[in-house]
Amino acid sequence: MVKVGILGVGTVGESVAKILLENADIIEARAGRKIVPVLGVVRDLSKKRNVDIPLTDDPMALIESAEVDIVVELMGGVEEPYRLVRKALKEKKPVVTANKALLAYHRYELQEIAGETPLFYEASVAGGIPIIGALRNGLSANHIESIKGIMNGTCNYMLTKMIREGVEYERVLREAQELGYAEADPTFDVGGYDAAHKLLILGSIAYGIDAKPEDIIIEGIENISPTDVEFAREFGYEIKLLGIAKKVEEGVEMRVHATMIPAESMIAKVDGVMNAVSVVGDRVGETMFYGPGAGGDATASAVIADIVEIVRGNSGPMLGYKKGLESGLHLVPPSKIRSQYYLKLKVIDRPGVLAAVTSTLGEHGISVESMLQKPSRLADRVRLLFTTHRCRESEMKGAIEALKRLDVVDDSVTMIRIEK
Amino acid sequence: MVKVGILGVGTVGESVAKILLENADIIEARAGRKIVPVLGVVRDLSKKRNVDIPLTDDPMALIESAEVDIVVELMGGVEEPYRLVRKALKEKKPVVTANKALLAYHRYELQEIAGETPLFYEASVAGGIPIIGALRNGLSANHIESIKGIMNGTCNYMLTKMIREGVEYERVLREAQELGYAEADPTFDVGGYDAAHKLLILGSIAYGIDAKPEDIIIEGIENISPTDVEFAREFGYEIKLLGIAKKVEEGVEMRVHATMIPAESMIAKVDGVMNAVSVVGDRVGETMFYGPGAGGDATASAVIADIVEIVRGNSGPMLGYKKGLESGLHLVPPSKIRSQYYLKLKVIDRPGVLAAVTSTLGEHGISVESMLQKPSRLADRVRLLFTTHRCRESEMKGAIEALKRLDVVDDSVTMIRIEK
Repeated sequence: MVKVGILGVGTVGESVAKILLENADIIEARAGRKIVPVLGVVRDLSKKRNVDIPLTDDPMALIESAEVDIVVELMGGVEEPYRLVRKALKEKKPVVTANKALLAYHRYELQEIAGETPLFYEASVAGGIPIIGALRNGLSANHIESIKGIMNGTCNYMLTKMIREGVEYERVLREAQELGYAEADPTFDVGGYDAAHKLLILGSIAYGIDAKPEDIIIEGIENISPTDVEFAREFGYEIKLLGIAKKVEEGVEMRVHATMIPAESMIAKVDGVMNAVSVVGDRVGETMFYGPGAGGDATASAVIADIVEIVRGNSGPMLGYKKGLESGLHLVPPSKIRSQYYLKLKVIDRPGVLAAVTSTLGEHGISVESMLQKPSRLADRVRLLFTTHRCRESEMKGAIEALKRLDVVDDSVTMIRIEK
Repeated sequence: MVKVGILGVGTVGESVAKILLENADIIEARAGRKIVPVLGVVRDLSKKRNVDIPLTDDPMALIESAEVDIVVELMGGVEEPYRLVRKALKEKKPVVTANKALLAYHRYELQEIAGETPLFYEASVAGGIPIIGALRNGLSANHIESIKGIMNGTCNYMLTKMIREGVEYERVLREAQELGYAEADPTFDVGGYDAAHKLLILGSIAYGIDAKPEDIIIEGIENISPTDVEFAREFGYEIKLLGIAKKVEEGVEMRVHATMIPAESMIAKVDGVMNAVSVVGDRVGETMFYGPGAGGDATASAVIADIVEIVRGNSGPMLGYKKGLESGLHLVPPSKIRSQYYLKLKVIDRPGVLAAVTSTLGEHGISVESMLQKPSRLADRVRLLFTTHRCRESEMKGAIEALKRLDVVDDSVTMIRIEK
């Protein structure tokens, strides 16, 4: 019998305990041994929980208990779980965590501390989708060319609504909050930070890149409007919040932002709260992994899969490799990434304005791929919509600043990157 | 250094050797040890191969060679590889196979013989997609509710062409043969047998069902016409060749056939030669795994992933569990499966015919969900198209026989199962 202790018995923790009990038969058949939740840690012992295991408010007691063989960390936060996971690993207790923030900041230190002790984290990226296993094991023969993931269900739900129903961002957000898909303070989701944590984890497994959230471009979906969605459609694109990691000549680009992607690509067809990660390997070509990215039971499914792997005696190094993965691969600094761009400007409707705008773009080394002029709601204004050929992020940023300084251009310029 | 011997150096074998050499850096980083192809077996030593390893025509010599640590079986066929894989396992040499036919017939004997020696087979189902790993490891917390897979690229390519371009089966088949997507004798692919072998393997991992190809319904796409495709579209369905394994009240249904599925489902969106497997778990909900189902490099990617797992020291029981998986689960006999059906009949265009047809359906316990009458190319004939509510396969088979006996009904009745 293998005894599991759970640090943090919230929604996911309750599901882990419940599934271990309710699906005990099949889990034992697959793991080869009975797996039992024996203890949970909560902050507030007086609160009622839907789970039938002993509870304590002392995490150290759980970690040190001779009754606990495997420690499951589901607390959230960074420094407190870091301290506790380190402690468990030092006690040579295998750890399973769903904590993406912890890993976004401390995965390399943890791999070092873990050594031969298993530290698994399937649930930290894309909930119930076994994407870590796929990348760490299933695609191990490949140099990874790119990863493109829809890894935040809140954003995908909101964008799907905006695409299908032409609804404004503010209204969709309110609806998502009412349905419980978005938090009261939605910044972590709609600002792209949640997706960024997940992307950093995948970027380590694929490329061995030791980056922190502050090292990469992180943008959200707050500035996307129905106009953008509509224009994207006209040109055969859908807009998705993507986490992108890809190998380019200069190294590895990693970034999270609203992205226009061809409507016929598989990942563009992923709607609603679902997640999906597309991985291109140099030998396998494109694969995609689809499923629920959140929810207590779906996340617990991934947590328990890790526990079963540990019980089976499987491990391998935490991030999937022991030493440098690909020599000389470095993160490309945000200013140096290259992309195609979509630009939306509101300008004064008079002769010479288009010339002023396009020559400003040209001066910054940006060449236009397609252009569309549309009426604005204001009588004396028109909308100019561009897609550009590939250029550097720094050139685009410079061009946008220069455009804003033109007195014929209104202040708000929308920029969305295009990914083919 | 780990030394790999390859039984069968055809397209996939060449790719395995080539990728082990060309991606040696990343594979070593991930496996923790260098992996080298040292010997290959071919039938005809005089034929030129695109691979730089020593070759022999003596498979036993490879298996017994002290130079070979891991045996990769890529020969095709059933009894000859069965003999050789048994021999390798008896020598305690880990085996990796891509041979679905071998596993469709002998997987349970092989699991028994393998014991603690690893026997991996990721490449046997859906080529480069790591679906075996997902099902065996990633979803191990779940009772599996259903598996629905597009597991034959030839059929999916042909159906996609028929759907998009309204082309007749015969012409699409000819095109597929010219492009190399279909064999000169296409029966194994278009008749559903290839998909059936793969389904049986997944059915064992998910449900522990020990079935052989002859125990399940295997139908192909030979009778699908542009009319069927068009009718399906009108009612919001796409037609795909699916391998289906699902838990129902009476046990587990397993079957391969052309299937009408809702156009908005993710798996309906999988086009061309690509494969995808949708798995619904009782806890995780729906997940889907998408990618290339064939091709030398894609298949080799899966073979090498298995080799890396073995080198990392991971194993677990071959089919993912040690003893009975779910007690009391049995294969539902083909005649007892339940489904909704689509029926297409050509009938004589005169009063009373519709009444005769519908009362025959009623007598066999079949109730109609929707009906459409369409003109036929023959002046005195019309087409009747039905979808039915759920009924037993045996009832439907009886009804079709009775319909054919009506003298107002032409002999060819098309039946396609509907899966929601």
